[in-house]
Parts: sequence; C-alpha cells; structure tokens
Amino acid sequence: MRIVLIAAIAGGLASAAAAATSDEQAIIARETHWNAVLAAHDLEGVVAMYSPDASLMPPNAPRVEGEALRATWKAMLGAPGMKLVLKPEAVTVAGSGDLATDRGTYVLNIDGAPEDRGKYVVVWKKVGGEWKAFQDIFNSDLPAAKPAE
Amino acid sequence: MRIVLIAAIAGGLASAAAAATSDEQAIIARETHWNAVLAAHDLEGVVAMYSPDASLMPPNAPRVEGEALRATWKAMLGAPGMKLVLKPEAVTVAGSGDLATDRGTYVLNIDGAPEDRGKYVVVWKKVGGEWKAFQDIFNSDLPAAKPAE
Repeated sequence: MRIVLIAAIAGGLASAAAAATSDEQAIIARETHWNAVLAAHDLEGVVAMYSPDASLMPPNAPRVEGEALRATWKAMLGAPGMKLVLKPEAVTVAGSGDLATDRGTYVLNIDGAPEDRGKYVVVWKKVGGEWKAFQDIFNSDLPAAKPAE
Repeated sequence: MRIVLIAAIAGGLASAAAAATSDEQAIIARETHWNAVLAAHDLEGVVAMYSPDASLMPPNAPRVEGEALRATWKAMLGAPGMKLVLKPEAVTVAGSGDLATDRGTYVLNIDGAPEDRGKYVVVWKKVGGEWKAFQDIFNSDLPAAKPAE
C-alpha cells in the first residue's frame, strides 16, 4: 500500500517526487480533470468520472447511482452561479493498483447562499485501465443551520 | 479487486458464500464488532477500530484525527440515550488485500432528538495483519433543518 500526501507530490522535492508513483499521479490528474469539467459545467464530463456502478452520497439526500447520479449532478451544475472546487489532500493506492482512496476538501459557492466548505472521500477503482470514481461522499465543515422554531 | 454485496455473504446461498473471501468476511466481522463496542458505549473499543493515522469526518464539523478523533467519539458516546447501529451493504477489497472499502447505512438515536438515518463510507487498511478503519465519513439522508429566521 502506498500513501502519499499531496503536498509531497506537489512540493517539488526530488525525494518526495520519487515517492509518488504513476497511480498516485493518475489520481491527482483525475482530480485536476474533475475540476476542469466542473468549471465548464460539463455534465457528461462529470458523469464520465464515475464507474457504471458508482454511488454518489450527498448530504441530506439518499445515496444515488446511475440515472439518479446524473440527475443529482445536473441539478448541482444547474444551480445559479454554482462553482465547486475540489482539493485533494491525501491519496492511498492499494499495492495491487486496482483500488485507491483520495481524501480532500471542497469549496462550494451558489448565488444567494453562503459559501460552503467541507471534505470528501472518493474511492477509486480501475476499470479497463482507467481510474473511475466508485464511491463519492462528502459533508460540510460548517455548523448545521439551527432548525426554525 | 473483489466486490461483494453483503446480501450475498449473509444470504446463505452456497454459490454466494463461496464468493466471499476471508478479507470480506473479516471486514464484516469488524463491523459486527464495531456495533458491539457502540452498544457497550466502549470508547476505547471504538478508538481501537481505527488506524493511528485515521481520519473521522463527521458532518458539520472539521475532519479530526488522533486525540480529536477520541474526543469526538467521547462526546458522541456520551450523548444521552445515544444508540448508533451500522449496517454494511457492500464491501470491496483490493486484489492485494491491503486496502478495502465498506459502504453502508446507519441509524442514530439520541434522547430528545429526531431519529437520524444516513450512510457512511469506511476505507480500511491492513495494519500489522489487522483491518483498521483509515477513513470514516458519513452524512444524513434526511433533509437539512430549515434555517431559523
């Protein structure tokens, strides 16, 4: 098992760079691509990040997969002024190179709503030689709203 | 990579049982033990489920590890009438048997609060031959409270 902190990958130190394998670099590249398709509000690009059997687990809603995963992202990307940025912090790849996990943080802005900041875990699996998001779950760091009386 | 739905493990069909490897069975056994230490409100037992470098990512609070992970569980277990039950639904183990993921649901009851139902992802890694929870993240399925005016 190989555990790599992103700072070590991005830090530019020769020793750290040597420790980052092609799988860790591939996961980081996937996250970079994910941010690009998010910035473009590219629904098909976002859906293509996932394996066919992937689960998306947003807060305050049931787990979704398949068409419901697409519908959830369509609603997210369609929110006015929606801007979501992912920041991977630590990648762990199984020794066999077929399963990996990536933990990080996000910042979400939507017009008319306070900025949300939180954390995520994506479990990746290799499908046909490509890393695909298989489990995607996140939640906010911010205090919950107080219930209305 | 081996993906096993828990129904296949628990279902008692000979063919399904044959498909469940010792690693999947070990993860399910870990979840059974987790439920036992939760039911006993055994803080040290809960903390021992985790690897030393584990992250716990509760909703509406920052990611915690180490002493802060212990403090978070201490507060959770100390909530009046707290009852938390985990139900694993799908386990995936890397071919190398050193990394695994387990997705499932939870039911949380605390005196004076509405019952919470939600979902979790635990990423497990093998540490000294034992499966330890390395990333633990969850969120509610229920709608968020409406903010107070």
